Amino acid sequence: MIPQARLEIQKERVVCHTRVQRNVNLEKLQNGYLFPEISMHELQHIRKYPDAKLINLGIGDTTEPIPDIVAVSMAEYAHALSTVEGYRGYGAEQGNKALRKAIAETLYKDVQVKDSEVFVSDGSQCDITRLQYCTCSDNGIKTAEIVMENFMTQAYIDTSVIIGQAGDFEEKSGKFGNIEYMNCGPQNNFFPDLAKTRRTDIIFFCSPNNPTVYVTDDSPRSIFEIPGAKEAVCSVVNYYKENAKILLETLASLGLKVYGGENAPYVWVHFPGSKSWDVFDYILEKTHIITVPGSGFGPGGEEFLRMSTFGHRETILEASKRLKNLFS
Amino acid sequence: MIPQARLEIQKERVVCHTRVQRNVNLEKLQNGYLFPEISMHELQHIRKYPDAKLINLGIGDTTEPIPDIVAVSMAEYAHALSTVEGYRGYGAEQGNKALRKAIAETLYKDVQVKDSEVFVSDGSQCDITRLQYCTCSDNGIKTAEIVMENFMTQAYIDTSVIIGQAGDFEEKSGKFGNIEYMNCGPQNNFFPDLAKTRRTDIIFFCSPNNPTVYVTDDSPRSIFEIPGAKEAVCSVVNYYKENAKILLETLASLGLKVYGGENAPYVWVHFPGSKSWDVFDYILEKTHIITVPGSGFGPGGEEFLRMSTFGHRETILEASKRLKNLFS
Repeated sequence: MIPQARLEIQKERVVCHTRVQRNVNLEKLQNGYLFPEISMHELQHIRKYPDAKLINLGIGDTTEPIPDIVAVSMAEYAHALSTVEGYRGYGAEQGNKALRKAIAETLYKDVQVKDSEVFVSDGSQCDITRLQYCTCSDNGIKTAEIVMENFMTQAYIDTSVIIGQAGDFEEKSGKFGNIEYMNCGPQNNFFPDLAKTRRTDIIFFCSPNNPTVYVTDDSPRSIFEIPGAKEAVCSVVNYYKENAKILLETLASLGLKVYGGENAPYVWVHFPGSKSWDVFDYILEKTHIITVPGSGFGPGGEEFLRMSTFGHRETILEASKRLKNLFS
Repeated sequence: MIPQARLEIQKERVVCHTRVQRNVNLEKLQNGYLFPEISMHELQHIRKYPDAKLINLGIGDTTEPIPDIVAVSMAEYAHALSTVEGYRGYGAEQGNKALRKAIAETLYKDVQVKDSEVFVSDGSQCDITRLQYCTCSDNGIKTAEIVMENFMTQAYIDTSVIIGQAGDFEEKSGKFGNIEYMNCGPQNNFFPDLAKTRRTDIIFFCSPNNPTVYVTDDSPRSIFEIPGAKEAVCSVVNYYKENAKILLETLASLGLKVYGGENAPYVWVHFPGSKSWDVFDYILEKTHIITVPGSGFGPGGEEFLRMSTFGHRETILEASKRLKNLFS
């Protein structure tokens, strides 16, 4: 029943077929990852309107220069690598010792985590995949049941699919059969009621939540705990915060229900009764603005759009103007 | 039949047991990764001889400063991030465009690879794991058969074990049941005879081979293809090459059969009839020199030791002196 994977290399008219079979779970992935899908819509739009001035409030990439103090520090480290005293070979496996100590003492002081228990990794997405492999195996026994919030960054769902823990995708509900979804929405401040959740082996939380950036309590530890960091980074953060305020007020003034945007670089806009890809296409067609359809984050995001507020000020002001023209 | 995985958190006398089962394949891993194992031997040695002047020819970490031209370039890029013109957000998914173009034109010119076909990843080890997931799945069907050289970097074997493709470890042969091993040794210039190899789905090559650094042909493309790079990097490379020459000549003068070391930062020393961990322990005990037991690279490395020639010149000279005293 497993289709033979085919690799066709069409060079000098030589066509090669491999007999190596593909992981059957790859076929269950839904439309690839969200952002490549958005890029395809963007490309089609550019072909249709080659002269349009496109505004991208999609993936949420930063635009403002980082503070001098950070850049200078990185540059000094790079320079030192060309000196006998400053040269370093392989980094420490678990991360720079001084950094691990600072993390333990600054971020985890209250819970008495030791520096030897801190691990500096190359990114949470890779690590979540790797952690999942610790509980699953290829022996056909489903060893892990998974619960997720009903919208969150899609990458974590994809890894569950690839390792065969997600089950089959059900078109109608937009859900995978072996994943429990916890309801998150404005009604519960975007945090699920765990008392109502069935007991499973793994629970995925995304806190602060992407896309809404709601947090599970009001005191997330961050870079701002480090003395001096607040001052250095503050002007950049305030710049983006002002962007968010502009966009949030614009959308609210148009009668739209908006979440996030207050201590967050995203706004999460509700379009009751609409499908999010439809709203995405409508806004792109009418205003040349790229956003992110909420359904890309899971079934709970179906009536929402995410808009990034990273960007130069004039871009955010122009986007606000176009949205005002469209919706008022 | 699967043992219940147990996670015990002993804090304030609260002991937690999780009902989440561990991936059964993790139990099949052999002694963890080679270098942590060596570190344990090193630690025991330091406890036994706290005043010994240890020399590390083990993991092979570089010691000499990198050329100015490289450090300055990195420092300039870091500095630019604090300017409006130089700031960059997310990098391009498939890698920096100019870099991909340069790689295609410089390294793959002869085989007409386009820049769009080049992918700059975060390291070959992660990628090999990910590629393996494309061909295996958890449905109990063994979809990939694997062939490996009979010694190579151990990490690739471990990933095969974790995803359940390696089968069970056989103590006596030092081999995994589902892996075919190709014989590599001095008799075939460390490259296997593919005509004698059974047809399988995946073949792992390590070329230039680590540890012997033998290559599959005599013209590997490298950083030296880039105009100017040769001059800039040459003095550092020549420094290590001279190290290798010193160590190689020392060992050869003692009547030992030595491979590699000519265009390579490692020497691969043959101790016929000996077990490599025994030779490792003997040399450590008598000379306080850390090396790498060849069996850590697979069953074909059993009678060999790898010695790194990265290091300050005086370290290599001192190591040569100690080895001469021991073996002459």
